Amino acid sequence: MKAISVLGSTGSIGTQTLQIAEEFPEQFKVVALTAGKNLKLLVEQIKQHNPEVVSVADESDIKELQERLSQSNLEGQKLQPPQIIGGAKGLDIAASWENADLVVTGIVGCAGLLPTLAAIKAGKDIALANKETLIAAGPVVLPELKRSGSRLLPADSEHSAIFQCLQGTPWAENAILSTGVPTPGLRNIQLTASGGAFRDWSIDQLKNATVEDATSHPNWSMGRKITVDSATLMNKGLEVIEAHYLFGLSYDHIEIVIHPQSIIHSMIELADSSVLAQMGWPDMKLPLLYAMSWPNRIQTDWKRLNLPEIGKLTFEKPDTVKYPCMELAFAAGRFGGTMPAVLNAANEQAVALFLEEKINFINIPRVIETACEKHKNDFKDEPQLNDVILVDNWARKIVRETVERNSDQFAVVPKTQ
Amino acid sequence: MKAISVLGSTGSIGTQTLQIAEEFPEQFKVVALTAGKNLKLLVEQIKQHNPEVVSVADESDIKELQERLSQSNLEGQKLQPPQIIGGAKGLDIAASWENADLVVTGIVGCAGLLPTLAAIKAGKDIALANKETLIAAGPVVLPELKRSGSRLLPADSEHSAIFQCLQGTPWAENAILSTGVPTPGLRNIQLTASGGAFRDWSIDQLKNATVEDATSHPNWSMGRKITVDSATLMNKGLEVIEAHYLFGLSYDHIEIVIHPQSIIHSMIELADSSVLAQMGWPDMKLPLLYAMSWPNRIQTDWKRLNLPEIGKLTFEKPDTVKYPCMELAFAAGRFGGTMPAVLNAANEQAVALFLEEKINFINIPRVIETACEKHKNDFKDEPQLNDVILVDNWARKIVRETVERNSDQFAVVPKTQ
Repeated sequence: MKAISVLGSTGSIGTQTLQIAEEFPEQFKVVALTAGKNLKLLVEQIKQHNPEVVSVADESDIKELQERLSQSNLEGQKLQPPQIIGGAKGLDIAASWENADLVVTGIVGCAGLLPTLAAIKAGKDIALANKETLIAAGPVVLPELKRSGSRLLPADSEHSAIFQCLQGTPWAENAILSTGVPTPGLRNIQLTASGGAFRDWSIDQLKNATVEDATSHPNWSMGRKITVDSATLMNKGLEVIEAHYLFGLSYDHIEIVIHPQSIIHSMIELADSSVLAQMGWPDMKLPLLYAMSWPNRIQTDWKRLNLPEIGKLTFEKPDTVKYPCMELAFAAGRFGGTMPAVLNAANEQAVALFLEEKINFINIPRVIETACEKHKNDFKDEPQLNDVILVDNWARKIVRETVERNSDQFAVVPKTQ
Repeated sequence: MKAISVLGSTGSIGTQTLQIAEEFPEQFKVVALTAGKNLKLLVEQIKQHNPEVVSVADESDIKELQERLSQSNLEGQKLQPPQIIGGAKGLDIAASWENADLVVTGIVGCAGLLPTLAAIKAGKDIALANKETLIAAGPVVLPELKRSGSRLLPADSEHSAIFQCLQGTPWAENAILSTGVPTPGLRNIQLTASGGAFRDWSIDQLKNATVEDATSHPNWSMGRKITVDSATLMNKGLEVIEAHYLFGLSYDHIEIVIHPQSIIHSMIELADSSVLAQMGWPDMKLPLLYAMSWPNRIQTDWKRLNLPEIGKLTFEKPDTVKYPCMELAFAAGRFGGTMPAVLNAANEQAVALFLEEKINFINIPRVIETACEKHKNDFKDEPQLNDVILVDNWARKIVRETVERNSDQFAVVPKTQ
């Protein structure tokens, strides 16, 4: 029985984590939950999972939550009411909750960074779904991991695939704890990419891509922001940076392969030229379950993969002209230090501006590139956590300002009909 | 540095093993060689690898070999002449040679069975290329493995793929040593099959298949007998039986998937529904190297797999009507005991008769089925080694007799033009 703390329990990762805990009650016990504003769902989750502690983002919501809980008569159902806490302090406590064996970090964006660091400092195993932890704060997080012995278990599909394939290698223990340590014998990582919504569009067509066009993904059901990242292939660029920190491989040994069916979730190439791949349906639950159950595997009755039914798997080289975001990510990754944090924040802001129909789809990479160029003046090679948060804020501001100042240059995105 | 004994050094597996030893001299040292009649090549191999002991099949060849070696002036090249032995006894000595860490069993057919057993009894690690060891003698070999702690490392492409994928599972140690022990958490094995020379032929066309048609394989370069096995899909049926003994999985959990490109060499499905696959170019050297280097991986400069260059991988269900041999193998495997030995020997004899143009291609399974049916009268559930050898001889005889007696019934294969 593994005791888990779920950070961001009402979000996409959080609710899927709780579904898994519900499906495998012999395996998982939920001891801590943290949520933002969705108190209604949070109360449901508390009734279902009976955690020891619950933290809400806003301390002023503590009272409201207590009232809702007392109305729902936990004692009558013989459930122990949880300890209710709140704010940044509460998040910290839930992230380092003593009885938790594993912390699932489902909080999106830089907000997830601090509690993930708290869990790392407490030496917890972490099912890592917050990507800023490594992309923006890699140089800060790596030494902390080494210090505490905390282990990062990737919960997203691509890195989980790599992680699953690496288990079979003689240097597995090293790879798991790696985060910065090169893994001998691992020659190459190949991250697969569906190619996103615009896989078959020409560059000319891309100029007229609407928000609606960009937010319909062929395979994965995801949030709007991530679906746009998938259309620009920035999601893959960011995964490259995450893979670099997770598996300690230099950028020359991380590749992207377009694989429209999203069945092979990623591959590794070993020293002897053997390639291992992990496959499955495109569903977040499997990698999440593996991160939660590692190093074991839990028996499920989930739909079995059926390759003859799928018929064929195809592969292409990515088009770096059509998708400049990949190259921007590789360049920022190689630059290292605070640069990936700027790339990540600039991208979030640029995508937000696209979704607000303030910039054209093909200008997303231009705007990001401008921010990265400007950052070279203030770049820090060995940043502290504070530096990361500062450059994150700076990059968002600079992107917004750049677009406002040059609104004619970045064109206006065609309106969704 | 691993010391290896190569049984069948002048055959296909043997020469490839020695090529690997030559390519990686820091990793492998050849201490024992055994060969049949090809003394010329054997002398070359002795000069190249300077083994401690050499055995020839025929004791009367010992003198001839000694003369050839003295002519080739080993001492002049500062090489220690090897001890030369011969016959069944010599094979036994080489197979259990004290200084050998690993025995590569490259002898084809039942002739490979006895020396492989000798190596098992001596507790050696074995790179297993002789398939009779498990297919014909599984029930004899399994208890011996348990007794001696010898480990079977599959050296053929499909089982190596399964074996490579299994390394990453929590029950890997169990799987490696399993041989009969069910591997918990392993749900399913999927052996891939190219589909052979007649993949796109109709049943009517198969009736007129010539020897030439049957012996040209689309992907793998192999001997004539194995290429015919690949055309009937019996090779895959035999691999199913071997997989059963190697990985301890029941026949209900072993599947065959047609995959014409032969890039995915096989797959495993785990308890949680995750699928792991091993990929590479169709080349025997990689699985052989892995068996020799396990649990490590050796750095090679072999041609890297390039999926975008390949473009697509396709998958189909196998056609059991067109290819009855698969079902025959599953049935013989489920019957167990001596039945797989009969299946294997009857198949070898049937293929030989086809290659002699004495039976029609589509009658290969009919002839095998007749032998298996007849064997039900003399079947042994828990055979001794002697029983296996007896039924092997019996099956070959019965197949030849059946065909001779009913030559009109089995039709004559169309002549190769």
